[in-house]
Amino acid sequence: MGNCLVAQSGGPTAVINASLAGVIRANQLNPIYDKVLGGIHGVEGVLAGKLYDLTDIPGDEIEILRQTPSSALGTCRYKLKRGQEEDFQKLVSVMDTNDVDTMFYIGGNDSMDTVDALSEWAAAHGSEKRFIGIPKTVDNDLVPPDHCPGFPSAAKLANLITHATKLDYDAYTRPEVFVLETMGRDAGWLAASCCLTGDVDLVVLPEVAFNKDEFLQLVQKKMDSQGSCYIVVSEGAHYEDGTYISAGESANDGFAHAVLGGAALTLKQMIVDAGIAPRGVVQGLSRAARSSNFAQSKVDVTEAYELGMSAHMRSASPDFTAQVVGVHRGDVNGEYNAEYFAGPASEFANFVKAFPAEWIRPDYAGVTDAALDYFRPLVAGEPDIIYGDDGMPKTVKPYNLR
Amino acid sequence: MGNCLVAQSGGPTAVINASLAGVIRANQLNPIYDKVLGGIHGVEGVLAGKLYDLTDIPGDEIEILRQTPSSALGTCRYKLKRGQEEDFQKLVSVMDTNDVDTMFYIGGNDSMDTVDALSEWAAAHGSEKRFIGIPKTVDNDLVPPDHCPGFPSAAKLANLITHATKLDYDAYTRPEVFVLETMGRDAGWLAASCCLTGDVDLVVLPEVAFNKDEFLQLVQKKMDSQGSCYIVVSEGAHYEDGTYISAGESANDGFAHAVLGGAALTLKQMIVDAGIAPRGVVQGLSRAARSSNFAQSKVDVTEAYELGMSAHMRSASPDFTAQVVGVHRGDVNGEYNAEYFAGPASEFANFVKAFPAEWIRPDYAGVTDAALDYFRPLVAGEPDIIYGDDGMPKTVKPYNLR
Repeated sequence: MGNCLVAQSGGPTAVINASLAGVIRANQLNPIYDKVLGGIHGVEGVLAGKLYDLTDIPGDEIEILRQTPSSALGTCRYKLKRGQEEDFQKLVSVMDTNDVDTMFYIGGNDSMDTVDALSEWAAAHGSEKRFIGIPKTVDNDLVPPDHCPGFPSAAKLANLITHATKLDYDAYTRPEVFVLETMGRDAGWLAASCCLTGDVDLVVLPEVAFNKDEFLQLVQKKMDSQGSCYIVVSEGAHYEDGTYISAGESANDGFAHAVLGGAALTLKQMIVDAGIAPRGVVQGLSRAARSSNFAQSKVDVTEAYELGMSAHMRSASPDFTAQVVGVHRGDVNGEYNAEYFAGPASEFANFVKAFPAEWIRPDYAGVTDAALDYFRPLVAGEPDIIYGDDGMPKTVKPYNLR
Repeated sequence: MGNCLVAQSGGPTAVINASLAGVIRANQLNPIYDKVLGGIHGVEGVLAGKLYDLTDIPGDEIEILRQTPSSALGTCRYKLKRGQEEDFQKLVSVMDTNDVDTMFYIGGNDSMDTVDALSEWAAAHGSEKRFIGIPKTVDNDLVPPDHCPGFPSAAKLANLITHATKLDYDAYTRPEVFVLETMGRDAGWLAASCCLTGDVDLVVLPEVAFNKDEFLQLVQKKMDSQGSCYIVVSEGAHYEDGTYISAGESANDGFAHAVLGGAALTLKQMIVDAGIAPRGVVQGLSRAARSSNFAQSKVDVTEAYELGMSAHMRSASPDFTAQVVGVHRGDVNGEYNAEYFAGPASEFANFVKAFPAEWIRPDYAGVTDAALDYFRPLVAGEPDIIYGDDGMPKTVKPYNLR
């Protein structure tokens, strides 16, 4: 079938390389493609003809690639838009030049839309090029699958840091509040997942319009009853009118440029200014949340790897195109079990899965048991990390830098 | 010999409970004290008579206590000052009431000074009470020992996050700077340790007066030559006149309350305002740096545990008092080897070990090979973590909350 091409797009995750490793390994087990070429920096590099031969990477490097966080091929935010005829032609011409008939694209909603748009274009132009999507996103907001590779590891790190910092916070007698901020611009999956540890008093999600007065009353109540209040806030938390919590205060407080840590800093300051606590501690997860190779979720890295393999294996059928692979939640004797499936790219591209309203408890009091049941199996299992002599998890040198 | 008392003070660390576990376990191996009593919230709780019996904690709980971050007995910032006669009398009276003749105090400089002051007071008042120190501090600033328990684990987490976020940062093509901020108000040990990964371009330490113009020129140079610049800054970095970087800018930018993340946010904004990069990413370690049970240094947790044991074992000699245990760096066939010692509490209490000037490379270019040789063995070795069914490292419920 000639060669295949694999590229990565959007924000990196702790396991996006596991999916890449899965594609490469699958082709070593069943070499249906002569070569597996890596496209550097997503479609941006592919359009520039930047490809890197990954076909014969040795088994031990594949194992290290599996546990290397971030995108080893580099990433891009460039979006191929329908109607950009020149880009489409250029991309197909690069594929032709390199004898590529199938492209695997690992990414989030936008990347799955690229898969859809390229497939449409190919069909409309009588091209036999095929485009197949492998999902990833720490935002966990794709509709058809139960969850998205990258999210469980981010949730695991968020839980590890929540519990560790809660223990640290509880060691003191002095009155102060603790505010942890997680990624999550539009959906509160990651912030909500922090409730798993049982340590969180109040959670502020983007799904619920923020009411300052109500919130401060609840903080006051916690401080009065237990002398402490551990708060988790999603970076995208906002007021009724859509103004971000951070942005709302920044006009006055000068936090305008505090892109990260903005919501947590603002909440802390709000509480201090209201005289509820004389001080507070702010903990941001920032980029560490999505690059935690030292705290990969075992379920996550396994699924990400197997989704890469599944996409490759399904592509043995010549008519497999415009499809994205994913995981449904199965149940075997009451235990979580991943069930792999494939569906139309259009279904992955055009919808955003919000954190379910019925899983949110009122009064910022966290999430329901149903939500915890959803999260629990995703973070379970300890990772099998290969360490170097330096005591650090081994990582591959990014291919995009070579 | 009656009972002994053990308490924790100052900022928690990832391994301060390992020292506590060492004292408890040593007394199970050789029960020279009838009971091991835990003082709740340092001297503050001891003065209030809050003691908790730890004598017969089962072996498996001791193993979990070893890996539980933060201070299981709670901590305090209360300092017993020489001349506070009432406090000294009260403390000794609590010891009498509970048949305690020996107190182990786990803490930093201030706590070692408390050990010294209490020992002096006992000697002056013909009391046979004994006071023994076990050091801990993520700041790594005690003079006699080679390093302090707590620091290696903080350094390990800092290195893990440095490397993971560098990989994440390098996945992008867009021009932006990355600024990581570590704890370290007076000494730059933790920020300097981040150089171990080889990922850091510029390091701003409290030991070198910050020069904005020079620094910005160096950032510009990195951006020109490689299109990226990964910066690490210690929270205590400051200008020639002692003004903290964060504080200096906060007067203008409103970051006055941004206690954490202040230096990194300020540097990022400085670079953006100078037109050197259109954007930047800020990553703070904050409290996570000192409570990383999921990334304990193996050397650290072993030494912290063994220092607890060593203090207990040495106390079998009735004249062992006013002493603090510590670790010297030994060398066996070119390999790092911990050598345990004890020395006068006064030597631990009254000096602060700055990061050596001769280990700092000019132009914010990180640290010398001698510094890296110092750090390397401290973070080596992977931790043996006991996980629960939930995929999280097991922790004990803090004794101070019971």
